[in-house]
Amino acid sequence: MIKPNIETFIGCEADFDEATTVIFGAPFDSTVSYRPGSRFGPAAIRHESYGIEIYSPYQDKELEDFKICDSGDIELPFGAPDTALDMITERSREIAGNGKIPVMLGGEHLVTLGQLRALNDKYPKIHVIQFDAHSDLRDDYLGVKLSHACVMRRAFELSNVEMIHQFCIRSGEKTEFEFASENTDMHKFNSEGLDEVVNQLSDGTPVYLTIDLDCLDPSCMPGTGTPEAGGINFTELLNAVVKIGKLNIIGADINELAPNLDTSGQSTALACKLLRELLIAIQK
Amino acid sequence: MIKPNIETFIGCEADFDEATTVIFGAPFDSTVSYRPGSRFGPAAIRHESYGIEIYSPYQDKELEDFKICDSGDIELPFGAPDTALDMITERSREIAGNGKIPVMLGGEHLVTLGQLRALNDKYPKIHVIQFDAHSDLRDDYLGVKLSHACVMRRAFELSNVEMIHQFCIRSGEKTEFEFASENTDMHKFNSEGLDEVVNQLSDGTPVYLTIDLDCLDPSCMPGTGTPEAGGINFTELLNAVVKIGKLNIIGADINELAPNLDTSGQSTALACKLLRELLIAIQK
Amino acid sequence: MIKPNIETFIGCEADFDEATTVIFGAPFDSTVSYRPGSRFGPAAIRHESYGIEIYSPYQDKELEDFKICDSGDIELPFGAPDTALDMITERSREIAGNGKIPVMLGGEHLVTLGQLRALNDKYPKIHVIQFDAHSDLRDDYLGVKLSHACVMRRAFELSNVEMIHQFCIRSGEKTEFEFASENTDMHKFNSEGLDEVVNQLSDGTPVYLTIDLDCLDPSCMPGTGTPEAGGINFTELLNAVVKIGKLNIIGADINELAPNLDTSGQSTALACKLLRELLIAIQK
Amino acid sequence: MIKPNIETFIGCEADFDEATTVIFGAPFDSTVSYRPGSRFGPAAIRHESYGIEIYSPYQDKELEDFKICDSGDIELPFGAPDTALDMITERSREIAGNGKIPVMLGGEHLVTLGQLRALNDKYPKIHVIQFDAHSDLRDDYLGVKLSHACVMRRAFELSNVEMIHQFCIRSGEKTEFEFASENTDMHKFNSEGLDEVVNQLSDGTPVYLTIDLDCLDPSCMPGTGTPEAGGINFTELLNAVVKIGKLNIIGADINELAPNLDTSGQSTALACKLLRELLIAIQK
Amino acid sequence: MIKPNIETFIGCEADFDEATTVIFGAPFDSTVSYRPGSRFGPAAIRHESYGIEIYSPYQDKELEDFKICDSGDIELPFGAPDTALDMITERSREIAGNGKIPVMLGGEHLVTLGQLRALNDKYPKIHVIQFDAHSDLRDDYLGVKLSHACVMRRAFELSNVEMIHQFCIRSGEKTEFEFASENTDMHKFNSEGLDEVVNQLSDGTPVYLTIDLDCLDPSCMPGTGTPEAGGINFTELLNAVVKIGKLNIIGADINELAPNLDTSGQSTALACKLLRELLIAIQK
Amino acid sequence: MIKPNIETFIGCEADFDEATTVIFGAPFDSTVSYRPGSRFGPAAIRHESYGIEIYSPYQDKELEDFKICDSGDIELPFGAPDTALDMITERSREIAGNGKIPVMLGGEHLVTLGQLRALNDKYPKIHVIQFDAHSDLRDDYLGVKLSHACVMRRAFELSNVEMIHQFCIRSGEKTEFEFASENTDMHKFNSEGLDEVVNQLSDGTPVYLTIDLDCLDPSCMPGTGTPEAGGINFTELLNAVVKIGKLNIIGADINELAPNLDTSGQSTALACKLLRELLIAIQK
Repeated sequence: MIKPNIETFIGCEADFDEATTVIFGAPFDSTVSYRPGSRFGPAAIRHESYGIEIYSPYQDKELEDFKICDSGDIELPFGAPDTALDMITERSREIAGNGKIPVMLGGEHLVTLGQLRALNDKYPKIHVIQFDAHSDLRDDYLGVKLSHACVMRRAFELSNVEMIHQFCIRSGEKTEFEFASENTDMHKFNSEGLDEVVNQLSDGTPVYLTIDLDCLDPSCMPGTGTPEAGGINFTELLNAVVKIGKLNIIGADINELAPNLDTSGQSTALACKLLRELLIAIQK
Repeated sequence: MIKPNIETFIGCEADFDEATTVIFGAPFDSTVSYRPGSRFGPAAIRHESYGIEIYSPYQDKELEDFKICDSGDIELPFGAPDTALDMITERSREIAGNGKIPVMLGGEHLVTLGQLRALNDKYPKIHVIQFDAHSDLRDDYLGVKLSHACVMRRAFELSNVEMIHQFCIRSGEKTEFEFASENTDMHKFNSEGLDEVVNQLSDGTPVYLTIDLDCLDPSCMPGTGTPEAGGINFTELLNAVVKIGKLNIIGADINELAPNLDTSGQSTALACKLLRELLIAIQK
Repeated sequence: MIKPNIETFIGCEADFDEATTVIFGAPFDSTVSYRPGSRFGPAAIRHESYGIEIYSPYQDKELEDFKICDSGDIELPFGAPDTALDMITERSREIAGNGKIPVMLGGEHLVTLGQLRALNDKYPKIHVIQFDAHSDLRDDYLGVKLSHACVMRRAFELSNVEMIHQFCIRSGEKTEFEFASENTDMHKFNSEGLDEVVNQLSDGTPVYLTIDLDCLDPSCMPGTGTPEAGGINFTELLNAVVKIGKLNIIGADINELAPNLDTSGQSTALACKLLRELLIAIQK
Repeated sequence: MIKPNIETFIGCEADFDEATTVIFGAPFDSTVSYRPGSRFGPAAIRHESYGIEIYSPYQDKELEDFKICDSGDIELPFGAPDTALDMITERSREIAGNGKIPVMLGGEHLVTLGQLRALNDKYPKIHVIQFDAHSDLRDDYLGVKLSHACVMRRAFELSNVEMIHQFCIRSGEKTEFEFASENTDMHKFNSEGLDEVVNQLSDGTPVYLTIDLDCLDPSCMPGTGTPEAGGINFTELLNAVVKIGKLNIIGADINELAPNLDTSGQSTALACKLLRELLIAIQK
Repeated sequence: MIKPNIETFIGCEADFDEATTVIFGAPFDSTVSYRPGSRFGPAAIRHESYGIEIYSPYQDKELEDFKICDSGDIELPFGAPDTALDMITERSREIAGNGKIPVMLGGEHLVTLGQLRALNDKYPKIHVIQFDAHSDLRDDYLGVKLSHACVMRRAFELSNVEMIHQFCIRSGEKTEFEFASENTDMHKFNSEGLDEVVNQLSDGTPVYLTIDLDCLDPSCMPGTGTPEAGGINFTELLNAVVKIGKLNIIGADINELAPNLDTSGQSTALACKLLRELLIAIQK
Repeated sequence: MIKPNIETFIGCEADFDEATTVIFGAPFDSTVSYRPGSRFGPAAIRHESYGIEIYSPYQDKELEDFKICDSGDIELPFGAPDTALDMITERSREIAGNGKIPVMLGGEHLVTLGQLRALNDKYPKIHVIQFDAHSDLRDDYLGVKLSHACVMRRAFELSNVEMIHQFCIRSGEKTEFEFASENTDMHKFNSEGLDEVVNQLSDGTPVYLTIDLDCLDPSCMPGTGTPEAGGINFTELLNAVVKIGKLNIIGADINELAPNLDTSGQSTALACKLLRELLIAIQK
């Protein structure tokens, strides 16, 4: 019998109701100041995922060992960040409200705010772990408060976000680094210090993981809006994700893949693999 | 409520049972001798179709005025042309057997043979109209009989194929042109003579339409395996399709889009638009 | 003596005060629904202009025969269309208020609205001539009123815009074509009918010319967000511009060049040449 | 038996001694002011020629009907135009001295001068037919006399060059057009007037044909250093070449293909086909 | 005197008879399931080799110190894996039968089977050393036994293949890893354990070396069909090759370069350099 | 008020007179034997610099803490290396003569000779520190003395160049390595030994730093004419630059960025960041 052409991330074919984890895409990039294109990230990850396997030799598990639902992309209005964030919050709330873990695929980093707003309503004392080349701590960008350059500053202002642990940061205005020294737990350049953070949070603290793919060195992630030399490699990020996955993860996102900026496809292939490892790592 | 992520060609969301026309993809390109990549054609057409509208100002109709089903791609085994053709024949037979018109998206031109074999079992005295830069009339290619360079020769051999009307042909071996002068109705370089052919076939003769996109000039279709200068432009092909659509179309295909060979995307966008026009044109 | 590195469009080095015509860029593309990238248009046109000559063999004049100032780009806030349009209006007002003709380089087509708002305050009974593949007459796009898909609907609502003459239109929703049949002067597919329009407006009527480069066939303009097959070629557009240039032009724009979508550079080179011809054509 | 890996243009495998026509490549592009890359032209044409056929349906002949030798590329020193031109002259002299027709593949247009110098020593009253977007009639470029922008001025100065017939010219400095109006037979924009020229030269006058591929519209030839909108299409150029081929051709060249600027490959494919047609057209 | 245009890998210009090592290309990629293009590998390596030197500062030797013949590519029939493998076996047998070492350039990894079949007839107790991201141990792929995903399973079944030592493996189905734990000597992720293997085989055991370039991290080898993050870098692979070269090498191959997938050219340049080092390393 | 459109490297907007350091571009690549394109380097670095920040978290300083002037590009005549070098020498002399540090952006590596000639007239006993994959020590290239492959040999011959310290060298002819063992201080493959060199030169010796970006591994610098596998990563180069910056730097250059060879943009972004760090590092 001929059935409809359902396209999901490989190995994530559970129904919403039975799933413990739900993927969705937030294809929005209206506020990026430099090179747009992350709007194409979620579809590319989904589409190219048939080039990888469902089995992880790193964690010796298969995606199909778990119940994961890929709920597709939200259709977001370009040029209207307020509305877009509201729509993301609504989706995250629906997922988290059903006791499932939402895993969002950006889009620009601003989309993280939409998801965090939903979780902020549900969980107390959230710790955010951020992998990113940029601190994203500006108060505004050309007067605009809802910008990808400000997303962590907005996250910082949420009532239940207790601490932001930042890793791999190697770019920003001087004032952002000054703000960080007062207000966040910033680890420059790489993932040094992660073990201590993981150890500290291993008591069941609700943890949100946001991965801006430009934390990686541009040699392995050229397909991103603002490539920033001097990042970590895939293995270092993979190890970090596996460690963090053991914590009480309440939600996660992978963002800023701009697939068309890397015609070789290595960036998208890496993102697919990272998502597989993340999805397996956070299963209990 | 969150539903599965169904991806179809725009405006083609009818169920199989209610549909009058059924699209499917045959992503196969194992026998091409020059530049592969047409395997990516069907997915690209489907995915990029959200960049066009469902309304045709040329025919003043909308896709949604009709019942069209997009039944997705067949998963074909690369390197095994016999098996692949059998699987295509099976799908075409299922569609045609239900009284619907199958519209196939290639893949390389060889896939046409699979669909023609199914229709050959059902219809008498089929006339094939072929738009193509290459005659595809070789008897074999390096000893291989099932090759994209031989597909029209194989079609010629089918019992119920009465005549092949070839348009835009401007490349081939000398022997192919000699074969054509004896055995087919070849119109070189462009669509001259189409009106006579359409007139001749307007009595209800079963007609199969196969469009190798390299019939177009490479300026408007660079994304194809074997671009051949001196082709027709989009408007000439569109006019031809609208005329042919009035005949008794028993099946059709659009093939040889190799989307990755044209990073600008104009080739895929043209193929999307052509498919929309073809689907509307063949509705009665 | 070593001087600062001033980059202008070739042959447009007049000071603002002495200029009769002033170019500026509006690098904004936040509301496009399909493929972004027109934000890079103005800089690309300026930068690649050193590949063309200042002399036009078509009009037998040189750019340096006139006083034209290139005033550079406005720095616009991505994700904030209201603010961006206000900033454009301000720049256009400053130019037009000084009796000069503003020529804007987009950016997405929405930027036209910013400039028209300024001119709407200054001139009565404006006629707009639009070259475009898309009618851009939607009332909203996913609820958003300020979208590139709605720009001509917004222009239509301006108090002093008396008529919009649309050419080359070949894509849109059915409702847009219905709206056009009641409210605009739409010429589908190509520039047929232009002579009559030019004749009608040759009495000194204030005319605004907006050129969405996707009016051209994608074969000669692949570098645009939404390529739409079946457009006109460069020569047809050039002839149109030269004719229109003889009217009382109060402002103009060229938009929707997305240079990175065409790695061959032919799209940017064409835009440079078109701008040269436009600048010469509108000089009195 | 395993033989060496000889790579020639398709169908051009005659030995030098038996050949009536000899191809060679001049991969030099040191003096181009805008975008280099034509150095890769000859190898690309040779390498991609296996994507076309040896049979011409336009002229109903095969390359193998004739004795044509592909003698490979000259290794030229970049940055030393004088030496490079001398080496080209020597090769052309060797070919022409043996009563064969030299057909050179550029490289930038400057290489034409090297070949013309050799022919200037052998033939009286040469007429040059040039297809080109640019007149190439500057006296110098930033003080340099041996530049691609000056090649036709240098050709004009050769003692036995009686007239230069220029077609498709649509770019240059004003002074070049003024020079042309006094000294050359310039046909602007397209090939109008060719029939008269061919008629005039049909008395056995020695004719040299130089084709700068940017005479073509960039839509069908994006892969060239300086694409110039408004050119002719392939069919118009093909028809011209077939007509000219009937004259007494003493040498020819095809130049300015920069294959890497067109990742789709359509430009190289066109150049291959044009070379095939040229080679057939000039056989007596 | 003008000689034919022979194109070989740089520094490999010995005649077949005098050579100790013979290169040939197997440009075949019909069975790849994901991204084709490795058919273009051999020609790209040969063509771009003029960008490297013949001297290795790593091994302080020159290619021209040895007698190496580049015997060109075999023309293989696409879509017919059986025939293609037979033709490869024949070529390998001719080389090995003459006491020379065959070094094959793929093409997809399946081509290794053709060469191993020839060597399997000549040598007892062969050990295969495989560098690869994928184990290639599937029994079939969509029912097809001759697939690039199955090549090592087929190699395992050859009568004289005693052991397969696998390095850098980081992708496969769970069943492949289970098969490996029983039947092969698999080293996951990198080249750890190589010293022990080399030590064990240093007694004159016949060793075949097959390098799937996707063993490398995609950051330095994006131009391959299935890039897999987390691979080794060039230096680690180079060191491995130099060590392995000291063993009794009976044949080798480098495969899965898909040059067009990496427009920067770094992948092809790396492959050229690796081939140079391999050729020098295996000379005794 | 509307001001002219001055484009400088980010944060380098001091006037020439007040500046301590002056940047200029030398967009010349006529002598490169392999892949041209470094002529586009300076403009790309300047243009893309708005994608980085002016603050260095590595050195905790901002570009705007210092007085740096970007004096734009010199317009150099392609195909005339002698003249081009003279024009570079003149610019360098003007800068250095005013007691400022010239920082040149190539262009091919040959441009270094132009700047060194100016400094050779002003300083005694200059030590050159070179980061490069290639030794550039050939005496000539196809008979040409002024070639990018010979630049360090020419530098060696300058009267006041006392020693050349070469790092990361991993390619060249055997004779170049032999020359180096007698005449230069060559450190193969990486930056080992730099600490000793820095220590030795820390007595105020005038030091010139030339960075050929191909010293980096192609994974992080694919956008260069001759990518050479096995190079250092960004962090290693950054650390070297910071150390060297503490010496008595009399001039510096960064060359061989060919931005168009890397469509992802990571190469240009790295070059921008490296230039920022270099500019900060050399300030006293």
